[in-house]
Amino acid sequence: MGTVGSMSTSTQIRLVRRPVGEPADSDFETTTSDLPELAEGDVLLRTVYLSLDPYMRGRMSDAKSYAAPVELGDVMVGSTVCEVVESRSENRPVGSYVLAFTGWQSHAVVPARQTRRLDPATAPISTAVGVLGMPGFTAYAGLLQIGRPQPGETVVVAAAAGPVGSAVGQIARAKGARAVGIAGGADKVALLRDELGFDVAIDHRAPDFADQLKAATPDGVDVYFENVAGTVGEAVVRRMNTYGRIPVCGLVADYNATEPREGAEPAPDLLRRVLTKSLTIRGFIQDEFVADHYADFLRDMGAWVADGTVRYREDVVDGLENAVDAFRGLLTGRNVGKLLVRVGDDPTLG
Amino acid sequence: MGTVGSMSTSTQIRLVRRPVGEPADSDFETTTSDLPELAEGDVLLRTVYLSLDPYMRGRMSDAKSYAAPVELGDVMVGSTVCEVVESRSENRPVGSYVLAFTGWQSHAVVPARQTRRLDPATAPISTAVGVLGMPGFTAYAGLLQIGRPQPGETVVVAAAAGPVGSAVGQIARAKGARAVGIAGGADKVALLRDELGFDVAIDHRAPDFADQLKAATPDGVDVYFENVAGTVGEAVVRRMNTYGRIPVCGLVADYNATEPREGAEPAPDLLRRVLTKSLTIRGFIQDEFVADHYADFLRDMGAWVADGTVRYREDVVDGLENAVDAFRGLLTGRNVGKLLVRVGDDPTLG
Repeated sequence: MGTVGSMSTSTQIRLVRRPVGEPADSDFETTTSDLPELAEGDVLLRTVYLSLDPYMRGRMSDAKSYAAPVELGDVMVGSTVCEVVESRSENRPVGSYVLAFTGWQSHAVVPARQTRRLDPATAPISTAVGVLGMPGFTAYAGLLQIGRPQPGETVVVAAAAGPVGSAVGQIARAKGARAVGIAGGADKVALLRDELGFDVAIDHRAPDFADQLKAATPDGVDVYFENVAGTVGEAVVRRMNTYGRIPVCGLVADYNATEPREGAEPAPDLLRRVLTKSLTIRGFIQDEFVADHYADFLRDMGAWVADGTVRYREDVVDGLENAVDAFRGLLTGRNVGKLLVRVGDDPTLG
Repeated sequence: MGTVGSMSTSTQIRLVRRPVGEPADSDFETTTSDLPELAEGDVLLRTVYLSLDPYMRGRMSDAKSYAAPVELGDVMVGSTVCEVVESRSENRPVGSYVLAFTGWQSHAVVPARQTRRLDPATAPISTAVGVLGMPGFTAYAGLLQIGRPQPGETVVVAAAAGPVGSAVGQIARAKGARAVGIAGGADKVALLRDELGFDVAIDHRAPDFADQLKAATPDGVDVYFENVAGTVGEAVVRRMNTYGRIPVCGLVADYNATEPREGAEPAPDLLRRVLTKSLTIRGFIQDEFVADHYADFLRDMGAWVADGTVRYREDVVDGLENAVDAFRGLLTGRNVGKLLVRVGDDPTLG
């Protein structure tokens, strides 16, 4: 039962204005707040990694969505990997590591039962918010429960160098399907092809993108894992085969949109495709699959990561003060791999 | 083995031009053609009823769809209920009735194996192209296999006075769900409410349609059986509950469209709804369910029709020469119930 000697404080990033379009520095404020004393069962956590994820853009907005927005003045929410620095919980000793949801701040006091203990010997602790965490599970559940790729089928995913997309492609391959990855820029395309084992990787910024997509999918598309939307999504949907499936897990390309995208396809055209091709479009949030599939995920994905079937990339930005800028980059595709902010030292790194 | 004494001819309606927008009289031509001699296994059929169905609009067009277009100069396709007037098939004696696919014409010679024999004692022969035929099966399969209504859920269907819509609502009720029907005009609304047992019926032409829809669905919408699209469809989709299901079986409101509908919702808005509500949109053609579910359909629907659980309405237009005009009316909602052309006498009618 270790304790820290003095009253702790937390450095926090708070949402003070709802962003219009791209989030601006002035939409946030950095504060330093005293932390409360620990009650029985509480832990004091030091943030090692803050996970930055596209869903956070929705939480900054007060448009109706699947989750309540962050209140103005509140600390931005987010998953974190933390070290326990003070504990009044037997199962979370000081020096242990946990997955928590303490948001954009350096320290926090929370009930230990709101955390999940991590074993640094099994996998790097950062993977708990990446390939072995929510992004990995989003890929696993959405692809296998909705996409249901069959051996020999073609699976297409965009933002393929991101944590969800890269897992989608590699799980598809593990299931015997062909994986076509779409990403922005030569570096990402090379990563997909050379390191992550995609069958084909194409650059959506290429002027002949539509032709490349056609060449990459000579037998059409059976599963399109939709996590970007925009013009890329429209191009892929045009290539769908009869009975194709489209799990919809994100629409990053349109998240910052303040007005309808010029030239966006009208819904009746999309519905006509759905009808003539007997397509399935299914929106989902990973939560709905947790009860039935999370244990399978940890087992399967743990094994795939361990034996190299599924590889992952991380993009680590140092310092909480860089979180807002890093988040902007996430929405425009600046990062390669899972985007993390290293808020404090990671003592588990060799 | 009856025979007709003389060489027979058939009066036929042929497609001679691809309609632009609403089909015009000049897009068709009426011809009289000699019929071939019967080969072994053939039957000579006299058309009693021609079924008019929305999918025919697609066949008139050469836009890519799920079925090949009718070639210019060919007889318009369509399901028919026919009397056998000459036969070289043991199982289709003269005077028996069959379901066939002989199209917009008065007579035809076809192999008997391309017909299904009907029993006039079990149900009126006209139901073979209606409630106990393709439209009924479309409702049954789409609602139960994709919509999957649960007891207490709210099911909404438009074109609810039509053969598919009216079956959807009544099957939903049989499964313990609440059925909300949308139709155009006071007559149809009264039919839904007073004869077909819908819980609520509303008129999409009412100036306060959106308010009426809201009042009719206080708990939101769990299943929207999409067979019209247009502004009505958009209004219903806005009321969908989380995990709502949208079987898409038709888009009649947009079938005649020659250019994008003014004010149609952009696809990104629809996808945002799909994502935030975890909706399922699934296009289908009834064919895909035939192998697994047609026998169940004949059993269930036969029983429901026999005991009055499912009622049906027919709108019978006399004379093949009125088929084109009747078909125009189908696309604009002029008919009430299943639209049939009585091409020749129905001797089974009391």
